[in-house]
Amino acid sequence: MATTPPTRSPELRKDPVTNRWVIFSPARAKRPSDFKSKSPENPNNNSSSCPFCIGNEHQCAPEIFRVPPDPNWKLRVIENLYPALSRKLDHPNGQNDDSSSELSGLGRVVPGFGFHDVVIETPVHSVQLSDLDPSEIGDVLIAYKRRIEQIKQFDSIKYIQVFKNHGASAGASMSHSHSQMLSLPIVPASVSTRLNSMKEHFNQTGKCSLCKVQSKDLLINETSHFFSIAPYASSFPFEIWIIPRDHSSHFDELDNKKAVDLGGLLKLILKKMALQLNNPPFNFMIHTSPIQITDSEIPYSHWFLQIIPQLTGVGGFELGSGCYINPVFPGDAAKILRELNVP
Amino acid sequence: MATTPPTRSPELRKDPVTNRWVIFSPARAKRPSDFKSKSPENPNNNSSSCPFCIGNEHQCAPEIFRVPPDPNWKLRVIENLYPALSRKLDHPNGQNDDSSSELSGLGRVVPGFGFHDVVIETPVHSVQLSDLDPSEIGDVLIAYKRRIEQIKQFDSIKYIQVFKNHGASAGASMSHSHSQMLSLPIVPASVSTRLNSMKEHFNQTGKCSLCKVQSKDLLINETSHFFSIAPYASSFPFEIWIIPRDHSSHFDELDNKKAVDLGGLLKLILKKMALQLNNPPFNFMIHTSPIQITDSEIPYSHWFLQIIPQLTGVGGFELGSGCYINPVFPGDAAKILRELNVP
Ligand SMILES: Nc1ncnc2c1ncn2[C@@H]1O[C@H](COP(=O)(O)OP(=O)(O)O[C@H]2O[C@H](CO)[C@@H](O)[C@H](O)[C@H]2O)[C@@H](O)[C@H]1O
Ligand SMILES: Nc1ncnc2c1ncn2[C@@H]1O[C@H](COP(=O)(O)OP(=O)(O)O[C@H]2O[C@H](CO)[C@@H](O)[C@H](O)[C@H]2O)[C@@H](O)[C@H]1O
Repeated sequence: MATTPPTRSPELRKDPVTNRWVIFSPARAKRPSDFKSKSPENPNNNSSSCPFCIGNEHQCAPEIFRVPPDPNWKLRVIENLYPALSRKLDHPNGQNDDSSSELSGLGRVVPGFGFHDVVIETPVHSVQLSDLDPSEIGDVLIAYKRRIEQIKQFDSIKYIQVFKNHGASAGASMSHSHSQMLSLPIVPASVSTRLNSMKEHFNQTGKCSLCKVQSKDLLINETSHFFSIAPYASSFPFEIWIIPRDHSSHFDELDNKKAVDLGGLLKLILKKMALQLNNPPFNFMIHTSPIQITDSEIPYSHWFLQIIPQLTGVGGFELGSGCYINPVFPGDAAKILRELNVP
Repeated sequence: MATTPPTRSPELRKDPVTNRWVIFSPARAKRPSDFKSKSPENPNNNSSSCPFCIGNEHQCAPEIFRVPPDPNWKLRVIENLYPALSRKLDHPNGQNDDSSSELSGLGRVVPGFGFHDVVIETPVHSVQLSDLDPSEIGDVLIAYKRRIEQIKQFDSIKYIQVFKNHGASAGASMSHSHSQMLSLPIVPASVSTRLNSMKEHFNQTGKCSLCKVQSKDLLINETSHFFSIAPYASSFPFEIWIIPRDHSSHFDELDNKKAVDLGGLLKLILKKMALQLNNPPFNFMIHTSPIQITDSEIPYSHWFLQIIPQLTGVGGFELGSGCYINPVFPGDAAKILRELNVP
């Protein structure tokens, strides 16, 4: 076996046992971390060395767009310097293992084509997403939407995962407030599973599983266009979902007015979480539908935003079974967060 | 809403969106940790305060059996003092939310009946699993088997997850070498997905997906009865699977001779992993079939043991999509481990 060249292209492979896609991306191993240790207390707050700070744009991978489009930007969408997928690759590249042709016949390997972008949410190092105004958070959400609209033009992109890592134990390698968008040439198994599961619920009950608050006991806060709950079967303690009130299959159906409304609710929820749980590391993920869905899938496809504070680790049980152990009943978490006053 | 009594029973709930079962278990929040910080360098090596050490049996939850059955035991299987599931609960207990009857009608909530056991692998605090002889590791494997045979008698138990957490960042709260067995009243979604996926592969190719080494490039080591590989679509860098050579659906088909053979291979692989990756925290999981499977499922159901060294964290992308990013191609990991000499 020849030594792997450092330029080996990314590749997606699907396991026939777990049915999961995995992205193989040697470039990812090289990315730096500005967290000195894996402790959330220890971010590098030295903005002179942070590529995401205003004035350091030259240290970054190419920009896609900025808002507003002038030197005094408030947010930037840029390419990830250590992308998991390659925007240059568009067809099988012959660098696969010998077995690749048989496996691509089985649909088990595809070239690692895709987009991996970073959304810099603020020009200032010390500002966090929840410090922004509702309308500024709305601008971040609208930036996701605008980027999704660009990427949708590529037929080979099947799914776009928007996510945020905050704090080292939530996976963040950069402390400057940012989120990421990974545009995939496949639909991940958990997205197909989610759609199938929502379909089953729809067929059983005649209702979309997310169109109504499951129970008043699980409600945290609501606005004109959104409500937030601790879901009945939350995998993690204090897990929170923010759900659009009107049925909507894709996140990019969000308009400017709803974006500000969502910005306000997200801000409130992040503040409550920080206050109640002592500023925990967290992730949020936007769960939207695959880009191409059929008309028959629309009635049960409803996007939502999931927030997970990182309070407990996981172990072999969760890795093995995919089943989680949650010590906090969602009704209790919802009550605490609902009744909390944010100064 | 009344305040939750501290004695609230565990409960399993299934989410209609993610299709995942979650165990709600307030008792789990109370378990102690003998790791002073979440750093793997810092285990409490003071055996006088460790309940798993020989001589401290009175500090433990009740024993199920020990081997050999005398004061000078080499391993013990005991109840978990902070069990995720309750062995006393056998029917709905009326403590559920108001919505419970509707939800149990939809099959979305079941009482938290089950067994949660700890296998203490050695009487001595400083001894790790890989320090034991092949036949002693074989004894641990046979203890799993013996306990599975006991639990199989309970009709309401559908799946048994055997797993090991080693090191704080792999989730371990106790540093004394041990593993766990969680016996569930449901089949976790990832187990059903695995079976379906193996079935699909079988239908497409006419072969069990695990009966043959996928490729010589992925092989690490082999023995008379087992082989170990870096799987073609490993989710994690240096992930390793140990697979029985003969087709076998259930782990508890293991006999004494094969257990010693597997013990030897597991020891070698754990030693290689420690040497190459600087003694990393790790998990291993035994992926077996649900207790009740039909004759038609046997031809494609093949158990295996999965070892995951904890080298990288995960972030929002993995939590959101269930898709992993692996910077190391399995062929490279296999080559390194295959060629490594263990002194
Ligand atoms: N100068 C520069 N210009 C442009 N981009 C730059 C840059 N310097 C760094 N970057 C990129 O900025 C991103 C920062 O992202 P995060 O801090 O959210 O976590 P990261 O993606 O490293 O990994 C976390 O999230 C991923 C996805 O969930 C997990 O796989 C992983 O385990 C977890 O640590 C990195 O992806 C990095 O490549
Ligand atoms: N005196 C005593 N007698 C009997 N049993 C005792 C005891 N003292 C402690 N125990 C039990 O011993 C077990 C030790 O288990 P581990 O160290 O493997 O991790 P733990 O289960 O705590 O959590 C890890 O594994 C689980 C399952 O994967 C994850 O949910 C979790 O996040 C992760 O930290 C604990 O479950 C504890 O309840």
